Amino acid sequence: MDKKMNILMFSGEYDKALAALILANSAKEINMDVTIFFAFWGLLLIREPENMSDEDKSTYEKMFANMTPKHIEELPLSKMNFAGIGKKMLTEMMEENHTPKLKDFLIGAINKGVNFKACKLSCEVMGFKEDELIKEVKIVTAEEYLIDAMDSNIQLFI
Amino acid sequence: MDKKMNILMFSGEYDKALAALILANSAKEINMDVTIFFAFWGLLLIREPENMSDEDKSTYEKMFANMTPKHIEELPLSKMNFAGIGKKMLTEMMEENHTPKLKDFLIGAINKGVNFKACKLSCEVMGFKEDELIKEVKIVTAEEYLIDAMDSNIQLFI
Amino acid sequence: MDKKMNILMFSGEYDKALAALILANSAKEINMDVTIFFAFWGLLLIREPENMSDEDKSTYEKMFANMTPKHIEELPLSKMNFAGIGKKMLTEMMEENHTPKLKDFLIGAINKGVNFKACKLSCEVMGFKEDELIKEVKIVTAEEYLIDAMDSNIQLFI
Repeated sequence: MDKKMNILMFSGEYDKALAALILANSAKEINMDVTIFFAFWGLLLIREPENMSDEDKSTYEKMFANMTPKHIEELPLSKMNFAGIGKKMLTEMMEENHTPKLKDFLIGAINKGVNFKACKLSCEVMGFKEDELIKEVKIVTAEEYLIDAMDSNIQLFI
Repeated sequence: MDKKMNILMFSGEYDKALAALILANSAKEINMDVTIFFAFWGLLLIREPENMSDEDKSTYEKMFANMTPKHIEELPLSKMNFAGIGKKMLTEMMEENHTPKLKDFLIGAINKGVNFKACKLSCEVMGFKEDELIKEVKIVTAEEYLIDAMDSNIQLFI
Repeated sequence: MDKKMNILMFSGEYDKALAALILANSAKEINMDVTIFFAFWGLLLIREPENMSDEDKSTYEKMFANMTPKHIEELPLSKMNFAGIGKKMLTEMMEENHTPKLKDFLIGAINKGVNFKACKLSCEVMGFKEDELIKEVKIVTAEEYLIDAMDSNIQLFI
């Protein structure tokens, strides 16, 4: 039986997103089954920029949706961000090294068949509707996360 | 045999505490055995506000005890805290959605029988005595954490 | 067969490094096999201060190498750092409690035979050569991390 990895993606930062998506891509390369469960700030990795709407949102939900990054490439670094300079430096260093961009790792993970789940409660609290997220994402409960994670060989909270 | 989850709660932030306690409550709902091991900043989740004392504390320990949040609801967000505005926004959004408060998830976890452990070394370094923590907590060593974690189906560092 | 622990050390902060190295030392005490895979900011824990070189580095790599802490004891705290005051306080509290320093836990981990691995892609992006890292470290790919982690009883992302 294939080995499984389950990542609970809680953070919404560029460098942590990179770590998670590089692991997800690498795991698929060695035929692991991979699920990423996006919760809290992690939802910012899977917004569909073409499909955002203020409809049916409360005032706070509208503020939240507009104050937070709309696209995965806009996420800040978890440290050394220096108002964006540190991130510019990291992305330039990645380019010098011919490393793909964060969005390429996201596309790679989608193409390789990584399972994308979003936390139901987080979506409700933050006011994200399923069609505001990329179409590969399915909204599930924390219980469904746990059932998948308990049978995984690797579980990480990022 | 029941499936087990072990969470090492290192962080002392509102949103991460919420993630850990929602997972702990959900895991009990599906009959998992759950242990949370509180270390470092995680100890700030389980202080007993009625039971704080400066007795037997060094100057640094007193400073530390007084500079840090005394109650779980006072924890800051890990990001977007904006001097408390971001947190106010999150808690209002939770209320709009009729989501329980962080302290309710803590009470829920206690009532459902989650095992609460605190890291002995962290307590010693930070100067917390066992009776300054909520009474459900037992102080144990890192070895005891490892022995529990190695037999768990899910281990997370939050 | 011995139980195994695998830590993915992503963070470059004093308190998180302390957590990881205390766990690693404790795990060896109870005869577990331990591997730490250092990636991204985690590489800052294993720089060899005697062996840094600007040779073969791009401008960004030089800047990065010089802006970041050169020695494990110089790492900042993840919170309450207050321009170093919070960290000073923590290290004083550790000393009062006769807790070893972070660098002692690193030396302990080396002496006890913890396996040190560094992430190949992170080293390439950040411009670290193998001989700029402590000599116990071996550079490996993310796939090699996954193969080790999938057979471990405990996996943590710190």
